[in-house]
Amino acid sequence: MGKSRLEAFSDGVIAIIITIMVLELKVPEGADLHALKTLIPVLSSYILSFVFVGIYWNNHHHLLAVVKKISAGIMWANLNLLFWLSLVPVATDWMGGNYFQKFPVAVYAILLDCCGISYTILQLAIENCHKDNIQLINIMQRQKGKGMGSLFLYTAAIPLAFINPVISCLIFVLVAIIWFIPDKKIEQIYSE
Amino acid sequence: MGKSRLEAFSDGVIAIIITIMVLELKVPEGADLHALKTLIPVLSSYILSFVFVGIYWNNHHHLLAVVKKISAGIMWANLNLLFWLSLVPVATDWMGGNYFQKFPVAVYAILLDCCGISYTILQLAIENCHKDNIQLINIMQRQKGKGMGSLFLYTAAIPLAFINPVISCLIFVLVAIIWFIPDKKIEQIYSE
Amino acid sequence: MGKSRLEAFSDGVIAIIITIMVLELKVPEGADLHALKTLIPVLSSYILSFVFVGIYWNNHHHLLAVVKKISAGIMWANLNLLFWLSLVPVATDWMGGNYFQKFPVAVYAILLDCCGISYTILQLAIENCHKDNIQLINIMQRQKGKGMGSLFLYTAAIPLAFINPVISCLIFVLVAIIWFIPDKKIEQIYSE
Amino acid sequence: MGKSRLEAFSDGVIAIIITIMVLELKVPEGADLHALKTLIPVLSSYILSFVFVGIYWNNHHHLLAVVKKISAGIMWANLNLLFWLSLVPVATDWMGGNYFQKFPVAVYAILLDCCGISYTILQLAIENCHKDNIQLINIMQRQKGKGMGSLFLYTAAIPLAFINPVISCLIFVLVAIIWFIPDKKIEQIYSE
Repeated sequence: MGKSRLEAFSDGVIAIIITIMVLELKVPEGADLHALKTLIPVLSSYILSFVFVGIYWNNHHHLLAVVKKISAGIMWANLNLLFWLSLVPVATDWMGGNYFQKFPVAVYAILLDCCGISYTILQLAIENCHKDNIQLINIMQRQKGKGMGSLFLYTAAIPLAFINPVISCLIFVLVAIIWFIPDKKIEQIYSE
Repeated sequence: MGKSRLEAFSDGVIAIIITIMVLELKVPEGADLHALKTLIPVLSSYILSFVFVGIYWNNHHHLLAVVKKISAGIMWANLNLLFWLSLVPVATDWMGGNYFQKFPVAVYAILLDCCGISYTILQLAIENCHKDNIQLINIMQRQKGKGMGSLFLYTAAIPLAFINPVISCLIFVLVAIIWFIPDKKIEQIYSE
Repeated sequence: MGKSRLEAFSDGVIAIIITIMVLELKVPEGADLHALKTLIPVLSSYILSFVFVGIYWNNHHHLLAVVKKISAGIMWANLNLLFWLSLVPVATDWMGGNYFQKFPVAVYAILLDCCGISYTILQLAIENCHKDNIQLINIMQRQKGKGMGSLFLYTAAIPLAFINPVISCLIFVLVAIIWFIPDKKIEQIYSE
Repeated sequence: MGKSRLEAFSDGVIAIIITIMVLELKVPEGADLHALKTLIPVLSSYILSFVFVGIYWNNHHHLLAVVKKISAGIMWANLNLLFWLSLVPVATDWMGGNYFQKFPVAVYAILLDCCGISYTILQLAIENCHKDNIQLINIMQRQKGKGMGSLFLYTAAIPLAFINPVISCLIFVLVAIIWFIPDKKIEQIYSE
């Protein structure tokens, strides 16, 4: 069983998720700066989600690159991840449309947690049938450190949203920065 | 004639079908738990359809994996399946938006029946030009048992929706569970 | 220069075109047969367009299968075809939403003409840099007969829509049937 | 690390961007020529953006065709380009929906500038890890001349929009024509 269709299908779904979010970016009536300004919260929310979905695609790409065979477990774990990612546009729209109020920000943090947990489940499903692939285990080891840190930060962002949603948003940005920094070790593992 | 573009096109269409359903998930005004609660019926309906489309993609993937050549019949049978699947978002939206009332649930069951019949037609079209491919015939034999069972259950769900739509929904969940359980036999056939 | 990305991009665009049309299929309020009935014109219009876009994908698939190299001319001719196909959802929605009235039906026929002409331009662009590929020239010869017939019928459907749009719709169905009938000769050419 | 998934994902996102713009093409009520006429500004705006996104896909295709390896920098530079391209539908819709007024036209020009700069960043990221690939450097040299010219023209179109938006639109058309003219030199470099 090849992995090419799993990759192609995931690419398709993630490409759609990342793109349909713009459908919510509707400039209100008026052809001036004021009309454009009203877009700012929805646009900020879109940028944040674009970056998160981009990070997932990036990691998914790295993870699948070393996978050799696809089991039923991997298939379903992957669909599960895609399901949670598919809810990102709704949560993004809700958060941006409500000017980053407490409750929508907390719900967004919960969703990011669900995505993170689903990604971990996918990693476990892959690990489960690649027990002797050292390259893959090394790569996952690297991703897991960051992954656990992200899950911890997302979870912290849930109650913090009720104190001040700005703190939660800063946490989201922090997590994004953590993932942005390229991991020299991972690139080294690939080139081995 | 290669099968790669048929797979790529089907992946694209199924990826879009599974993803555009979220466009219907619109949180109503308000940034509190109450606004989120109103999403529950549409979200349940979405989860159900996500799982069904996911199962079809999964089976399509397994079926096409052993196909060697593509005939005009397979092309059209595949487009026919994609057509019925493309109606899933509309039916999902209607069922969820009307709080799983009798009539929309029955229509949803009819649509699942149409999808199931189309999948069977695709199997027949493939069988028709792979008469000496034992691996493929074995895989289809496995899928057919479950397929016939599902068709029977969907058909039963149509009249039952008018008695109590909850029964039909439980049947939908039951069919999903049947397909979720990985088929050891199929994985064995592939590894042969 | 490979043709794989041209195929992948075209598959993506056509998959989206064929699928986003369902976004217009919105069941009006009500959970009964009456609400569903109001869908009939939009649904008929969708089925017609699904079949037409399906036929284009099918022919595109056959045409590209024998192409060896991609020139700038082919790139632009292909984008031109995709442009006209991308207008199909708008015309479909307009025709269905206005219960197949004269003017929208005529506009739909004009659009089908534009798609047909664009396809012919793509064929010419391909012919232009594959002058010694006999297999390709034979396949195009087969497609051209049907193509010219279709263009003639679409053109006839424009004025006929003003007499009676039903006649034009019957012509659309007729053209679809012409393309449905598998061409034994083409399959023979491929297997040569 | 292969480049196939980067290409596939970019193809997916660009295909969606180029296609979802039609979702804004909604014919207003009425089944006559008058209703169709109201589409003209939105349609013109769509054609312009279709051509621009088409040019980007074309160039992206040429650029990636000679890339050998993918670094983290290329991944993020590519996502950055896709982000700016994903805003094209919103800007297109706003410009067309406001009949090409000064401010939306200026914003559109700014967006095209952002896309152009992102493309240049992607080129630099690729150059950075392909320092000894002469074929790639030659191709980029050819694209850079046109690229710099385009950036200059887009930048000029920003203030000019406030004098007369028609001038800016003519500049957009001019840039499109510059890219339309096939570059014999580039095709020569590929065939070397």
